[in-house]
Amino acid sequence: MNISVLGCGRWGTFLAWYANKVGHNVILWGRENSKNYIGLKETRKNDYLSLPEDLELSNSLEKSVSFAEIIIISISAQELRSFANQLKSLNGIQGKTFILCMKGLEATSGKRLSQVFGEEVGKNINLAVWVGPGHVQDFVKHIPNCMVIGSENIEITKKIVQELNSDLIRFYYGQDLIGNELGAATKNVMGIAAGMLDGLNYRSLKGSLMARGTREISRLVRAMGGNDITIYGLSHLGDYEATLFSVHSHNRKFGQAFVEGERFGKLAEGVATVKALRDLSIQYDIELPICNAIYEIIFENKNAKETLEDLFLRPVKFEF
Amino acid sequence: MNISVLGCGRWGTFLAWYANKVGHNVILWGRENSKNYIGLKETRKNDYLSLPEDLELSNSLEKSVSFAEIIIISISAQELRSFANQLKSLNGIQGKTFILCMKGLEATSGKRLSQVFGEEVGKNINLAVWVGPGHVQDFVKHIPNCMVIGSENIEITKKIVQELNSDLIRFYYGQDLIGNELGAATKNVMGIAAGMLDGLNYRSLKGSLMARGTREISRLVRAMGGNDITIYGLSHLGDYEATLFSVHSHNRKFGQAFVEGERFGKLAEGVATVKALRDLSIQYDIELPICNAIYEIIFENKNAKETLEDLFLRPVKFEF
Repeated sequence: MNISVLGCGRWGTFLAWYANKVGHNVILWGRENSKNYIGLKETRKNDYLSLPEDLELSNSLEKSVSFAEIIIISISAQELRSFANQLKSLNGIQGKTFILCMKGLEATSGKRLSQVFGEEVGKNINLAVWVGPGHVQDFVKHIPNCMVIGSENIEITKKIVQELNSDLIRFYYGQDLIGNELGAATKNVMGIAAGMLDGLNYRSLKGSLMARGTREISRLVRAMGGNDITIYGLSHLGDYEATLFSVHSHNRKFGQAFVEGERFGKLAEGVATVKALRDLSIQYDIELPICNAIYEIIFENKNAKETLEDLFLRPVKFEF
Repeated sequence: MNISVLGCGRWGTFLAWYANKVGHNVILWGRENSKNYIGLKETRKNDYLSLPEDLELSNSLEKSVSFAEIIIISISAQELRSFANQLKSLNGIQGKTFILCMKGLEATSGKRLSQVFGEEVGKNINLAVWVGPGHVQDFVKHIPNCMVIGSENIEITKKIVQELNSDLIRFYYGQDLIGNELGAATKNVMGIAAGMLDGLNYRSLKGSLMARGTREISRLVRAMGGNDITIYGLSHLGDYEATLFSVHSHNRKFGQAFVEGERFGKLAEGVATVKALRDLSIQYDIELPICNAIYEIIFENKNAKETLEDLFLRPVKFEF
């Protein structure tokens, strides 16, 4: 099958490498002037992997889209709306299958990425999300993981899984798009919180973070119309190893650097997500104590140590 | 208040140290001929801490029990029945409050420890459990954690919490004794599984382990009459940091040593628990795929790598 991957950051480049590895014809698209694209064009590799010879690099969005039956998107979540708008103007996107491989919410609206994409591109496409745990650094060392493909159409989900499943990535069928998308986005916020606890020498409180983090997001998902048990599956809790404990986690590293007073250069998608969650908390009238604390620490200059101590070490009460 | 701690292993000795630290008069009891007791008697310290001067060491069970209003028990879970039987014969245990600080199930019966204790000692006592995350090595470095006191009588729970709460340990009121006890016992099995994944270089699959481990135990708790959400609280999921990720976890280290072909000298309580779970799985007709796999690896010589690959990397399906 012909597959294009739009976006050539760490994850997008891996996805192209992976789609090629499992036997597909692949184009990896990047913006002509992006640093990642220029680097790949010059060296055919990045910090994590080398591109196989038969994987085509392109900076033509039109070509990449018309080439493929399945189009995987891996760009910054906050740029998705304008990117989708750009895609919409291309000929022949009708009937194609798009897979969003990003974990975030639109910061300005709190909307899920499939909502954002659907609003811009319309309904004449198939749309799915690909979420769950896994770091490029592990996959390229042949360390496997389990992930989730979710959509509102189980036949689309099954078809994607059939094309992409392998010994390296075992896919499960997601059955709750709201829960899967919320879960994937919000685990990054828990990752930031975990990094802050690490940086404050409160690593041991990551147990409480797991128990209480899942709980508050579960309540939100239910309020939004999803299934409250989805959060305890691969898209959220199942991603905690990779996000709350792994040395590779950007969000965890961001949180740790933040409390240690250092700047962390790379993207931490959870920062935008925490903004979106502030709105969702109000909109659905659901208390999100952990997300709210991270918001106050990052955006309102609240003291991280005091805020997290208040959160985790406040007076006794019932657990649930 | 006068408090006795029965059992002077790593955890019991810490509990005595802690009860003293928060202001109580404390006797720490050990068997006269136990290695731990002899060591403490000679040096007033163990590998983790030094006993304060005003903490009394005793090998008289009668004295230790008659002295205290609250009696904390921290011995090997499999010895609880015979120990309870010994306590029963002492004068004046009626009306006292016993707190079980152990995480296990009776291997031969699958019974919870409060059931075992109640069967032997009778109903004229107050009985609670103290579970949740926390390593001695962290607490003695002033790293706090959140734990749970559970009983069938909320007034007893509240009284214990009032006497023992501090900045170092923040207690929550448990409201589901079945769930709290099952959760505390079974997290050790997930700890063994985590260690095996670590040893097989499948660390990344600990995300799936968390998602699926909580799920199967939750189903069991519901079948046993508990609340299926309790597992996602401090007694089980909240103890995963300390059990699945910490370098201090005995059960994790046992699992890792097992797959690496080494012997692990110290107690791994999860080994007895996995036996009990085999019975509970049959008794309540609940599939426990992870617990069952660990049973087969430990007791039936099944190949750990193949068994865990079958478990986590088997063909695609629905997540729940």
